[in-house]
Amino acid sequence: MTQAAQAPELAQVEQAAARIADYIHHTPVYTSAQLDELCGARLFFKCENLQKVGAFKARGASNAVLSLPEAEAARGVATHSSGNHGAALAMAARRRGIPAHIVMPANAPAVKKAAVAGYGAFIVECEPTLAARQATLERVIAETGAHLVHPYNDPRVIAGQGTTALELLRQVADLEVIAVPVGGGGLLAGVAIAAKAINPAIEVLAVEPAGADDAFRSFGLGRLVEQTAPDTIADGLRTSLGELNYRIIRQHVDTIVTVPDEAIVRAMRLQWTRLKTLVEPSGAVSFAGVLEHPERFRGRRAGIVISGGNLDLDQLPW
Amino acid sequence: MTQAAQAPELAQVEQAAARIADYIHHTPVYTSAQLDELCGARLFFKCENLQKVGAFKARGASNAVLSLPEAEAARGVATHSSGNHGAALAMAARRRGIPAHIVMPANAPAVKKAAVAGYGAFIVECEPTLAARQATLERVIAETGAHLVHPYNDPRVIAGQGTTALELLRQVADLEVIAVPVGGGGLLAGVAIAAKAINPAIEVLAVEPAGADDAFRSFGLGRLVEQTAPDTIADGLRTSLGELNYRIIRQHVDTIVTVPDEAIVRAMRLQWTRLKTLVEPSGAVSFAGVLEHPERFRGRRAGIVISGGNLDLDQLPW
Repeated sequence: MTQAAQAPELAQVEQAAARIADYIHHTPVYTSAQLDELCGARLFFKCENLQKVGAFKARGASNAVLSLPEAEAARGVATHSSGNHGAALAMAARRRGIPAHIVMPANAPAVKKAAVAGYGAFIVECEPTLAARQATLERVIAETGAHLVHPYNDPRVIAGQGTTALELLRQVADLEVIAVPVGGGGLLAGVAIAAKAINPAIEVLAVEPAGADDAFRSFGLGRLVEQTAPDTIADGLRTSLGELNYRIIRQHVDTIVTVPDEAIVRAMRLQWTRLKTLVEPSGAVSFAGVLEHPERFRGRRAGIVISGGNLDLDQLPW
Repeated sequence: MTQAAQAPELAQVEQAAARIADYIHHTPVYTSAQLDELCGARLFFKCENLQKVGAFKARGASNAVLSLPEAEAARGVATHSSGNHGAALAMAARRRGIPAHIVMPANAPAVKKAAVAGYGAFIVECEPTLAARQATLERVIAETGAHLVHPYNDPRVIAGQGTTALELLRQVADLEVIAVPVGGGGLLAGVAIAAKAINPAIEVLAVEPAGADDAFRSFGLGRLVEQTAPDTIADGLRTSLGELNYRIIRQHVDTIVTVPDEAIVRAMRLQWTRLKTLVEPSGAVSFAGVLEHPERFRGRRAGIVISGGNLDLDQLPW
């Protein structure tokens, strides 16, 4: 973190929305009578898999890139990311005409590397460990003077991700609960800040893979615990919760539930089949929360954030 | 054919649009800067895979069911279909509160049988031959008094499918060409009637699998030839062109091109990956036409009809 770790508020989310409007898509909300019937709820799927770069990450990265003063922006931006944040930062940097340096583990999925390369970013490969990522990123920043944009532990990124909730609450009236996947916590923190400021009665419900449940444990213990040895198909959610994200989540999130990988795969297949839309494992975690904890949704109007749709079609989990 | 084989005109398509408005979805048009760049054209994908029952067939079936006088409708409707038309007729019949009898080959994909059953229709299984289908359908009609709704060789069905073009031409200005898959020819005939009546300068370009190219051959020979032994992954397009459909296509369609199955699979994967939307093989045939015949689209504004998105996720062609 090179930024002061001040939590953004609704005003910052609204500023982000105005700032990034030309950089991102206003994504649709899908509904399905069959899935409503299956779950006994009214489900409104916010399709961030149809966002630019195929994930909500376009929002936060665009807000961070556009927030930079001209002189600082000119030296470029840098991050480490195994996937969607890297592509998002590369996309935003190209749009602004500045260089992006993306540190990626050598074993990152080919489809995600290709996406980053396609946006003209410099890819710097490293060993697939957190230590190697951080050391490589520090070296890149020292050499280039690029500005760090952390994938989630950054107030500008959090404010950008929060625009998802601003849009959703305008698109759907009278939502009672919003289900959001949680990994590093950028999307969850941003959505919670925006949704609770607009309507404190909305339940913000986080869903986490059981095989990477550090947010669930941190929430329960009342202190931030690290994720070690994650074991889940949801590759975007294996990371540890950020420090700033944790503080925001403690303050604004009502509930965290966990889901097994079997529920994630079932959610993916149901969304593919019924909504005809491609959802990556991490993106299906929110709906897996509905399948696994139906009593929390029954009879309610629920926003379900589909966070992304990037995956390797040759490596499907069935 | 139990209907007088009179080709519908734009007026019938417009009447169909008004009649079915509450039964169907107004489907979105997707675009992709990356696919535009790849093809050197401006592509507007009309997403009938997001239509009710996952295919454009909901339009024609709904128009036929809603066109029936009350007394005739009460005896129900019947058809033979290996897939999307059966589900569409079942859906429309359930909405109108009348019975539907769907004759399906015993080897039809499980996902398509489940869809028909899910709409409460009676499924009558038969051997997977055209003769068995027709004999079984005749028996069902004799026993029940149900009204036949042919999958494509029916002016009400053709008029219904044509509403796809009405919508698309309202959604996208200045289209120069529309690419449409052709199997039995219901969608193609309806789109051609509507598009040419609205703007005779639009090129209506049909795309057919090389392994089921009876429309291509009929068009070239100037007489209707039957499709025998089709061999293509596009299971919805293996059927022979209808007689009425042939006449309309001869009059209104500008061009027919064929595509190999390899291009269909490539088109599917590109649409899945870039548009994040599920397209069945038959639905990807129109875009395969762009990939296989790029010179026909280069520099032009092209409507690409994605006709459906129903397929078995356990039987993907890669």
